[in-house]
Amino acid sequence: MAEDEILKMHGGAEPGVLSMEPRFDVTSKTDLGKAYTPGVAEIAKLIQAHPEAKAKYTMSGKLVAIVTDGTAVLGLGNTGQAGGLPIIEGKALLYKDLAGVDAVPLALNQVPVDELVTTLKNISTSFAGFHLEDIAAPRCFELEEKLADAVDIPVYHDDQEGTAIVVLAALMNAAKVVGKKLKDLRILVNGVGASGYATAKLLMDAGIMNITLVDADGPITADDDRFNSYQRALAKRSAVSEHFTSLDDAIENQDVFIGLSVGDILMADQIKKMADQPIVFALANPRPEIDPQVAHDAGVAVMATGSSQYPNQVNNVLVFPGLFRGLLRSGIKKVTPELEVAVARGLSALVAQPQAEEIIPGVFNSKVVDTVTQAVIQFAH
Amino acid sequence: MAEDEILKMHGGAEPGVLSMEPRFDVTSKTDLGKAYTPGVAEIAKLIQAHPEAKAKYTMSGKLVAIVTDGTAVLGLGNTGQAGGLPIIEGKALLYKDLAGVDAVPLALNQVPVDELVTTLKNISTSFAGFHLEDIAAPRCFELEEKLADAVDIPVYHDDQEGTAIVVLAALMNAAKVVGKKLKDLRILVNGVGASGYATAKLLMDAGIMNITLVDADGPITADDDRFNSYQRALAKRSAVSEHFTSLDDAIENQDVFIGLSVGDILMADQIKKMADQPIVFALANPRPEIDPQVAHDAGVAVMATGSSQYPNQVNNVLVFPGLFRGLLRSGIKKVTPELEVAVARGLSALVAQPQAEEIIPGVFNSKVVDTVTQAVIQFAH
Repeated sequence: MAEDEILKMHGGAEPGVLSMEPRFDVTSKTDLGKAYTPGVAEIAKLIQAHPEAKAKYTMSGKLVAIVTDGTAVLGLGNTGQAGGLPIIEGKALLYKDLAGVDAVPLALNQVPVDELVTTLKNISTSFAGFHLEDIAAPRCFELEEKLADAVDIPVYHDDQEGTAIVVLAALMNAAKVVGKKLKDLRILVNGVGASGYATAKLLMDAGIMNITLVDADGPITADDDRFNSYQRALAKRSAVSEHFTSLDDAIENQDVFIGLSVGDILMADQIKKMADQPIVFALANPRPEIDPQVAHDAGVAVMATGSSQYPNQVNNVLVFPGLFRGLLRSGIKKVTPELEVAVARGLSALVAQPQAEEIIPGVFNSKVVDTVTQAVIQFAH
Repeated sequence: MAEDEILKMHGGAEPGVLSMEPRFDVTSKTDLGKAYTPGVAEIAKLIQAHPEAKAKYTMSGKLVAIVTDGTAVLGLGNTGQAGGLPIIEGKALLYKDLAGVDAVPLALNQVPVDELVTTLKNISTSFAGFHLEDIAAPRCFELEEKLADAVDIPVYHDDQEGTAIVVLAALMNAAKVVGKKLKDLRILVNGVGASGYATAKLLMDAGIMNITLVDADGPITADDDRFNSYQRALAKRSAVSEHFTSLDDAIENQDVFIGLSVGDILMADQIKKMADQPIVFALANPRPEIDPQVAHDAGVAVMATGSSQYPNQVNNVLVFPGLFRGLLRSGIKKVTPELEVAVARGLSALVAQPQAEEIIPGVFNSKVVDTVTQAVIQFAH
């Protein structure tokens, strides 16, 4: 992909990939009187008397704020909040193009979590939801929890819930391919940051309890101070009681390896130590935890990556556009684990006959957005 | 104007009068790679290395936030922040329709000023400017001062600077009509809230120093505790040294009455006490301080109102679209009194031959936006 094409797309005739579109032309005093004063006073009075009417008569009923502080941008790390802007703007473009959802990018200064919560609470009247993005762990866990308590609109962190939903959907079908029962799977999650944490948590919420957590400092245990309180609480909840000393040690007899860590960290020898018909989701970007060809030669049964170059691309774009369209249409105010499981189930069911190279729909499968939207709406009923 | 038409415009097929417009369709993996990952990482890296590049490669280079807390909405008073949304959304529509400026409405919780400043500072990376709207005095004075110091993008309060610029432009031409020198005018400003304060201040900044300030509690003096510190500082700066006891007393021999107060507060007898060829700007909405017909019968020489029903409509829409377009094009970061005077001069010059019933261009005069934009750009040089 030519860099100049990318630069031209994002910074061509005008800055950015979106603009504000007027739904009406104002060309006469009558138009002006309806769009602005004095007519608009009717709407203001209506909302003053019935604040909930704002959702019907202003953009606040449809506008999603995509929020980042730039502390964990793609594989780049902390780019500063401005560096996070093109990513959330790209997602705003996808929201509109794929699902007709209006979203605006919002970069936040890198201030303490409580100040971020206050900032977002103070602007929440304008929005129908908050989509958090590229915020570093464990900061993102605290932010999402506190923000969801502080506002009465949905709060969703794509790096957490989005990834977790797609992984669960893919895993449902991978289990079918290898003929194993989902809840019996022994799973190693490698990399317990925002997405690894949320994925392991959702798997447990779905009843898959044999989960071993491994981070850069090694296997996580409930009483090891090197890990944050979120990681330790999750280790405590897991049904796995063995204490491992390394990834190499922990990988033995696992049915599934889920990598949300860094490239080239998993070796062929380690795959050979896994249980029969190993499932490997090597989701690090841009380089997966193991090269798919190497994994294949080592005997992997089902393989997924985050890249569009290989089959089974685990990509959040499968979830967020339809999920938020569903939230807006159904009026659901909280993104709960039960909702996430329902969406994962809907997404996985879109693959009628799962096979090793087809456990998840493609990102341009025309049924994805509607399927996810409907899963949310049906969950609401 | 039928109320159902207004309701339908603001809350028809979808909520609000604007939507987000994608500048590109994303229909292939190549598109996805350019708009989002992996291509967007190029833009993120560029901005990480050169933060100022965000203005060229993201919407933050063009997007204006129109901000209200709903404490002083039109003639309605404090509607709550949600009640302020339709007004700022209407202005966002006008920005785009009239000047091609992208603006997003943002309602803020009614928290203390310092918390508002922090909130807006924390989101300022996303925007090319802040347009404040419908925020009560004296809160708005403190907010604007502190915010302008805290961020490096233009801050503009339409109720203050917008009104002040249009009034000054109209006054320049009104003075010509009655053959008086602008700087010699004796002026009474009635109603010293956000717009009255800013108008009196700009007139002084333009060298018109004989200004008497009258608020609901009566004439303002520098040492009267009933008035706020902003009002008292302005009274101190005025060249008028007489102490008046009432509007009725203060109006005697004034050349100009500028009302930014409430309807029907000025009497025909009071106009008769003014100097020869009195100029009356009765700008209260929806009812002016005096009915134009009554004022005419009392001998007014030049009359302006805020209404489209009469000649000489003083309406901020004459200023804000072109002003912000000029700020964005010129890169000016501060709205200063000198800039405001330059814009007023440009706007007044658009009326080639001022007459009693034509001292200010009409709001749909096709040259207004370009004239104001050019005035800003020329000021920058």
